[in-house]
Order: sequence, then C-alpha cells, then structure tokens
Amino acid sequence: MTTSRLLTGLSAFPLTPIADDAVDERAFVRIVERLATAGVDSITALGSTGSYAYLDRDERRQAVELAVAAAGEVPVLAGIGHVRTREVLRHADDAQAAGAAALLLAPVTYQALTDDEVLTLFADVSSAVSVPVVVYDNPGTTHVSFSDELHARISRLPHVEAIKIPPVTGGVDVVRARVGSLRSAVAPGVAIGISGDAVAADALVAGCDAWYSVLAGTLPGPCRAIVDATSAGDAQEAQRISGQLDPLWRLFGAHGSYRVVAALAEELGAVAHPCLPRPVMPLDEGGRADVRAALATLREEGLVEQ
Amino acid sequence: MTTSRLLTGLSAFPLTPIADDAVDERAFVRIVERLATAGVDSITALGSTGSYAYLDRDERRQAVELAVAAAGEVPVLAGIGHVRTREVLRHADDAQAAGAAALLLAPVTYQALTDDEVLTLFADVSSAVSVPVVVYDNPGTTHVSFSDELHARISRLPHVEAIKIPPVTGGVDVVRARVGSLRSAVAPGVAIGISGDAVAADALVAGCDAWYSVLAGTLPGPCRAIVDATSAGDAQEAQRISGQLDPLWRLFGAHGSYRVVAALAEELGAVAHPCLPRPVMPLDEGGRADVRAALATLREEGLVEQ
Repeated sequence: MTTSRLLTGLSAFPLTPIADDAVDERAFVRIVERLATAGVDSITALGSTGSYAYLDRDERRQAVELAVAAAGEVPVLAGIGHVRTREVLRHADDAQAAGAAALLLAPVTYQALTDDEVLTLFADVSSAVSVPVVVYDNPGTTHVSFSDELHARISRLPHVEAIKIPPVTGGVDVVRARVGSLRSAVAPGVAIGISGDAVAADALVAGCDAWYSVLAGTLPGPCRAIVDATSAGDAQEAQRISGQLDPLWRLFGAHGSYRVVAALAEELGAVAHPCLPRPVMPLDEGGRADVRAALATLREEGLVEQ
Repeated sequence: MTTSRLLTGLSAFPLTPIADDAVDERAFVRIVERLATAGVDSITALGSTGSYAYLDRDERRQAVELAVAAAGEVPVLAGIGHVRTREVLRHADDAQAAGAAALLLAPVTYQALTDDEVLTLFADVSSAVSVPVVVYDNPGTTHVSFSDELHARISRLPHVEAIKIPPVTGGVDVVRARVGSLRSAVAPGVAIGISGDAVAADALVAGCDAWYSVLAGTLPGPCRAIVDATSAGDAQEAQRISGQLDPLWRLFGAHGSYRVVAALAEELGAVAHPCLPRPVMPLDEGGRADVRAALATLREEGLVEQ
C-alpha cells in the first residue's frame, strides 16, 4: 500500500465552472482555495467533474495553472484524457509544466479500443512523463471495460502508481473481495482508489487507499469527516455520515453526479448559473428543487453551514 | 423523398490518412480525386471513417478545404461533431466557409446526454448554419440512442434535411418496416440514408434514399454498381454484387469497418502504413492477411482492378 499522501486519502474533484463559454477563473480559484483550506489530501483538477473532456488545450493549461497556484501546499492531480494520443501527450506536458504532482488518464474513446490499444495509450504516456500516473477506469464515460488482466499489464508500466476504480456496490465485503482480487493482479504498491461517492465509506472501510470524490470538490467537510473516521478505525461513524448524505447520493443516482454537484455549487453560490459546458444542460426546475431540498436537510443536520 | 443529389444516392466516406501524426495531404487529395472520378453522388469528408473525432480544428478545416478543391463538381459534406457545442459551431463555420454543401452532425458524448440535450445541440447548430444538416445516428460511437420521437423533434428544426441511420439487419422487409416507421415520424421530405455497408443493398432496395458508405471511400466501383442496380430496379443484381463483397463485410463485422478499410487502403497503396490516429492501431498481421485474402478474391471476381 502506497503511503504517499499524493495518491491516498481524500482527493477532491472541483468543477471547472464555465461562464460565457469560458473558464470562470475567479469562481474556480475560489473553489480550489476552499478545498485547500478544508484540508483535502489532494485536488484533482480536470476530472470528469471538472469537465476535462469538454475543454481545449489552452483551457486545460489555464485550469491546472490556476489550481496549482490556488492549492498552496496541497498537491494537484490533473486529468489529461483525450481520444487522441497526441493530445494526451500535450496535456501531460502542459500539466507537468504547470506543476501537477500526478496525472489522471482515462482512455477516452470514439472508436471502441482493443485492450492492446488501451495498453499502448498508457505505454505512450508512461514513457513520456516524470510524475505518477493514475489509471482512470470510468466505463460510464469511456465505454472501456478494464479486465483485471488489462489493469495488471498497465500497472507494470513505469510511473503507473494508482488506479481509480468505478463504484462497487453491495457493501464492505463485496468491495473487499473486489479490491483484493484487483490488488493481487496488479503490481505491488499500486494504490487503489474508489470513485462513486455513495459507496466511498464502504470502500474505505474495505481498505481502498483513496477516495476520488465528486462531492468533496464542492462540499469537502463531510467527505473529510468520512475519511478521518475510517482512518481512525471508526467504520460506524464513517457509514453514519455517509448515510446522512443519502439525499445527495439518491440525486447522484437519478441525475448523474455531474449535473447534481453543479446545481449544488450553484445553490451554494460557489458558481454562476449555468456552469456546465453546452450541450450539457443544468438540471431542470424539478431537479433543482430536489437539490435545494437535499441541501436544506444537510443544513438541518449540520453537515453544511447555514 | 428528397430528390437532390446532395442527400441521396451514394455518399463516399474517405479516410483522412494520418502520417507522422498529421493529415497526409497528398494521399487525401488523391483519394478524393479518385472518388470524384468514380462518380459518387457526394463525398463526406470527416465522417467516422475520416477520423473526424480525432482531428483538431485546424486539421478539420484543412481536410474540408482539400476535399472541396479535389472533389470538383461533386458536393462535399463535412462532419462537424464534437463533445462541446462551441466546437461544433466553430467546425460548422469553418466547413461552410470552405465550401461544404452540407454538414453531418453526430452528438458525440462524454457525459451521457438526455434527449433534451441532444435536441438542444441540434437546435443550436440549426439556428447557426445556412446549409443542410444530416443527423448522424451512430450509437456505436456516440452511445446516444435515438428514439423515433427524438428524430421527429430534431427533423423539424430548420436545415435538418436528412438522417443517417445505423445498420438494420434482417433483410429487405425489416428495413422497409423500420424506414417506414421512421419516415412516418419525421418531417416530410427528410431523406433517410443507411450506414452499415453489409446491409446497404437491402436498405436501398427497401427504399432508403442514400447509402453513407465506408467502403465507397476506398473502393467506390462496386458500391456505385450496387446503387445503380437499385436505381434501375434490379434488386437481384444489387444483392448479387453485395454478396460478392461478403469477404469484406465479414471482416468489417470482425474488426470494425474503420480498421479494415484502413488496411484495405494500405494494401491498395492509397495510403501509407499506418494511417490511423494513435491510440487506434492498425490491424495485426493476422487481420492484414485476411484483408489481403479478401482483396485477392475481389480481384479474381473483377470487382477490383488487378
């Protein structure tokens, strides 16, 4: 198990708010500063929540530069995915030059890729970078299905030090089995982090090294508390806090975490409305009302300041 | 049924060959010139076969400009898809300025889109362009599933004049039923074209207005013959020629038409090897041997010059 703070603990995925079809620099900087203050272990700029797939090279460079400057001592990871290897390598160069401490790479596809092609992509990047690479296994957006064998091959490339796995449902024992089988397949020392906020408490209790968190990018407090409870061995407390967040997890399930967290950030006044890149549209009025209701519940329970 | 040649008959989808990570201009121009000489009804630059999803704005503008210049009197359609509406609109502007006669738009996704978001994308484009728009329904690459209701709504937008539907298998009667139900849903006069080369003869016999053809971008002769036979009312002859191409259709099914047609173009000397944008890799030696064998069969049958 990797002990570096860089690839363990709580990594917060901030939105990259879009206003007038450009990155809203002031809002983004404010978000990142708040995350650093909240004591997250790392900040992943340009995750899926950070709209990386919609941003061009200049916008991505801008976002990583702003994030590194605003994050202070907190390490910044940067998403670099693109359908074309050439662009991935350019993003990797830019992110490293901007001070990213690690790179998050999803094999974004248009034509479906074979396992050998996915491996080739990671090999091309691996041989061109000097910071750790996190394998971003996100079948919901990339439509790439990683087998353990593919993970094993990629994990043996230089600089590949972590894997961000998709949600595993079914409780602690199921996650423990899943992580155990993946750990036995991949290179020793490769950190395994969970995505899918609703299952994160279970996954941390089950031994995942990191939580790559959508919600922590907007509401770091309760996420920090979940990770701290797990670190202190208090599984029950971690799961209790996660249970308090159920109204949000249900909305994530219904509308996708991306649109819900954008609406939440809008309600909190952290970003302007709308803040997602077209053609992605904000939640409709019914969805926004649900987000407001969930937020009211969280405020009543003291998870969000009044 | 639209009678304009622009959106009916045989539209050939050329490769945009990539060499040294850039568009191979000479090879691309030669391909387009050959298609014009072969008498295709239109040339669609920057289809999926033309790797549009992998090319940046400058490369796309370059490809459309080259295609329009090389196509002579043959109209050129241009693919403009991108995950972000802003980029789609830029591609539309560039393609129109370069002389594209129509635009082909697939709703490329990263985050899954709702039907309303897909409609919004087409509405944004529709209100910004002055040439016909072809709706590119390609679930295999975009992961968007078009209902007939969504097609109906989009078809009523200004400038939307045609739909490129995904393959329909099961024979002439099945395609006729599918096209009939789609036609009754969409705005009158919207042309319906088939993709999926293996089923094109059946689809044309069943009344499809156009064949958006991968193979015709590299081997227009037999595709032209299939369309001409159908136009002459000779369904049997169209299906006989399509049957002769079965060795290729089988390889399309096994490896995807994109990689197979690239290998075919390489074997024919039309492009250098490799010609696809990384991380997409050329067929392996076994696949290439199959393509060579298929090509030898086609040569024996006189479908390809010796």
